[in-house]
Amino acid sequence: MENFNFYSPTEFVFGKGCAVEAGRLVKKYGGTKVLIHYGGGSAVKSGLIDKVKKSLADAGVPYCELGGVQPNPRDTLIYKGIELGRSEGVDIVLAVGGGSVIDSAKGIALGIPYDGDFWDFYSGKTPEKALPVGTVLTIAAAGSEGSGNSIVTKEDGLLKRGARNDILRPKFSIMDPALTQTLPAYQTAAGCTDIMAHIFERYFTNTPEVEITDRLCEAVLLTMIKEAPRVIADPDNYEARANIMWAGMIAHNNICGVGRQQDWNSHNLEHELSALYDVTHGAGLAVMMPAWMEYVYKHNVLRFCQMATRVFGCQMDYENPEATAVEGIRRFRSFLHSIGMPINFAELGAKEEDIPVLVEKLGIGSGKRAGFMELDRNDVTEIYRIAAHASL
Amino acid sequence: MENFNFYSPTEFVFGKGCAVEAGRLVKKYGGTKVLIHYGGGSAVKSGLIDKVKKSLADAGVPYCELGGVQPNPRDTLIYKGIELGRSEGVDIVLAVGGGSVIDSAKGIALGIPYDGDFWDFYSGKTPEKALPVGTVLTIAAAGSEGSGNSIVTKEDGLLKRGARNDILRPKFSIMDPALTQTLPAYQTAAGCTDIMAHIFERYFTNTPEVEITDRLCEAVLLTMIKEAPRVIADPDNYEARANIMWAGMIAHNNICGVGRQQDWNSHNLEHELSALYDVTHGAGLAVMMPAWMEYVYKHNVLRFCQMATRVFGCQMDYENPEATAVEGIRRFRSFLHSIGMPINFAELGAKEEDIPVLVEKLGIGSGKRAGFMELDRNDVTEIYRIAAHASL
Repeated sequence: MENFNFYSPTEFVFGKGCAVEAGRLVKKYGGTKVLIHYGGGSAVKSGLIDKVKKSLADAGVPYCELGGVQPNPRDTLIYKGIELGRSEGVDIVLAVGGGSVIDSAKGIALGIPYDGDFWDFYSGKTPEKALPVGTVLTIAAAGSEGSGNSIVTKEDGLLKRGARNDILRPKFSIMDPALTQTLPAYQTAAGCTDIMAHIFERYFTNTPEVEITDRLCEAVLLTMIKEAPRVIADPDNYEARANIMWAGMIAHNNICGVGRQQDWNSHNLEHELSALYDVTHGAGLAVMMPAWMEYVYKHNVLRFCQMATRVFGCQMDYENPEATAVEGIRRFRSFLHSIGMPINFAELGAKEEDIPVLVEKLGIGSGKRAGFMELDRNDVTEIYRIAAHASL
Repeated sequence: MENFNFYSPTEFVFGKGCAVEAGRLVKKYGGTKVLIHYGGGSAVKSGLIDKVKKSLADAGVPYCELGGVQPNPRDTLIYKGIELGRSEGVDIVLAVGGGSVIDSAKGIALGIPYDGDFWDFYSGKTPEKALPVGTVLTIAAAGSEGSGNSIVTKEDGLLKRGARNDILRPKFSIMDPALTQTLPAYQTAAGCTDIMAHIFERYFTNTPEVEITDRLCEAVLLTMIKEAPRVIADPDNYEARANIMWAGMIAHNNICGVGRQQDWNSHNLEHELSALYDVTHGAGLAVMMPAWMEYVYKHNVLRFCQMATRVFGCQMDYENPEATAVEGIRRFRSFLHSIGMPINFAELGAKEEDIPVLVEKLGIGSGKRAGFMELDRNDVTEIYRIAAHASL
């Protein structure tokens, strides 16, 4: 196990009906003027935004608002939010939505107290200050409600880039699983895929002797394998939604990833897909993650056997471990397909002829991408090719 | 799943050599005058206390000190600590030791800013204020480094009672697994038992549909089953020590227990044992926990089958589930025995004829103790009897 720091100071308020706590929590964390940040129409139509506003009004906290966050949130709206927040004297940002809204809110929270361009923090600069962020979560997927991460797309050039720092962890997150019951099946399944991918990016490591985090990773995966099909079959299943929502937070606040080298290449490969085609992140991962696995599993066959046996219930083939590893990957792809996810470029809406563009945008140059297995241009080209042609 | 709040704002600094961070962290969390609190000679003899003092001096933070914390920490020393802390103008308490030292430090941190008797908070009063507490952990067991709990024994009458509140969560905890390598085997095994017990108290619940926390609980247990025998066989095994130390924190910061009814009867039954005989808490649990299981398993046979199959690798006997449940409990007791723990009163140093005294001290009266299965006086008497006579 490697040395590590772990700091997850977010207060989680979880359960049915807890959105009414927004006002109390904003006040508790020192907010005196709120920017309510949200996405498209659903949070408004469902009455959630009104409920949040009422809660703020009841607590005597004034607010302004900015809607319109798109999936794969854009820098352009963040600039607007920074301007609005400054002119209104905002001192806390309340994200009402899913990962895109929360990530956009984090960008605004970074930008308001900063003299330069907030994009600096998405280009490698370490942030030192940010306004507090609170969230009312409506999708179980990105884990941004508990993480110190934010991913934003630069409109000009469609660059998707991330910032990461503990000061970006929300002060509080309100998590009502019932709010996710109205999500379309495709979005639900994409969220479940994202959660599983957050685990796999941590699970495939070269760090030995990490049993506790291995087992925690497997706990989340086993939960998803039970619960995801249940919500696809019955979107109103509150209990399954609740288990998935909490799993989504645990998958990405890094409790499952401390003390070990991680691998975020599948996410990086996917980011170029969703930047180019604006596809749902989780759907892109459903295509890229098994393809990445097929390309890298020989780097450590027994680790893939561990996944296959502990998570996907395979019998270990001691005479032919590779067969077990491959069967585990096959079961993962088949599972994703069973919950309605695409498994190749055609189903996703991506084009094989764009692979050189995707590779170029990754910006590897003549170097290598670090991770479980180091990847150069040829490697990632091959992984995209596997993704293009994958079948059950 | 039940509604819940989860708030674990402790900063964990984990790994080899990290005790030198004490000064930096005390300063970060606003400490200007430190009370260093520790136990017997081992932290002094090993040079750890000197290392911590040097780190504080390097950071320019003055300190005073109070050693002498016993296992099952006493109220009497806490009164001394409160007096010393006040006269020295202490504004942060730094516990250097295991759960007893940390729990004692939490008592002092509650008492210094409080006008009344700190014991009020161990008699049901809700605390509103406490000095910040930091820890340098030397034993993986109690989980107090990440929890909002503190258990203290009142010298007069040997009453062992607890306080619980999020304000008791340490601001930071320094966790160097290498510091646990010098622990005697018995203390190591008792710590491992305590960690497993913290999980079981959460695992046996009447709340349905808690797959994610069930799986997280099982993750910790599976880790302990792998790692505990390794450190007993080889005390210097840093990697196994590291996995156990992180598992110990996760077992009790409540990430494995949210959203579900919990059962702390085994702990309560044990507290009377360690109050009366001053036995090591974990050793007492090794005797009481399997005895409790044997008495209550019929309340939900299939939940015990889940433990038996998922954790202890039993084959499910579908024609006779009870046989599987009983086999799981048998394997648990046998595991504890294999790492050197006592399994009955005689091995622990407790006496069957004291059972009426133990029952009396529990203070159940004519009522019932809530939990997985409600327990009245007759029930707990029977559980103590099972514990008295247990064998492999």
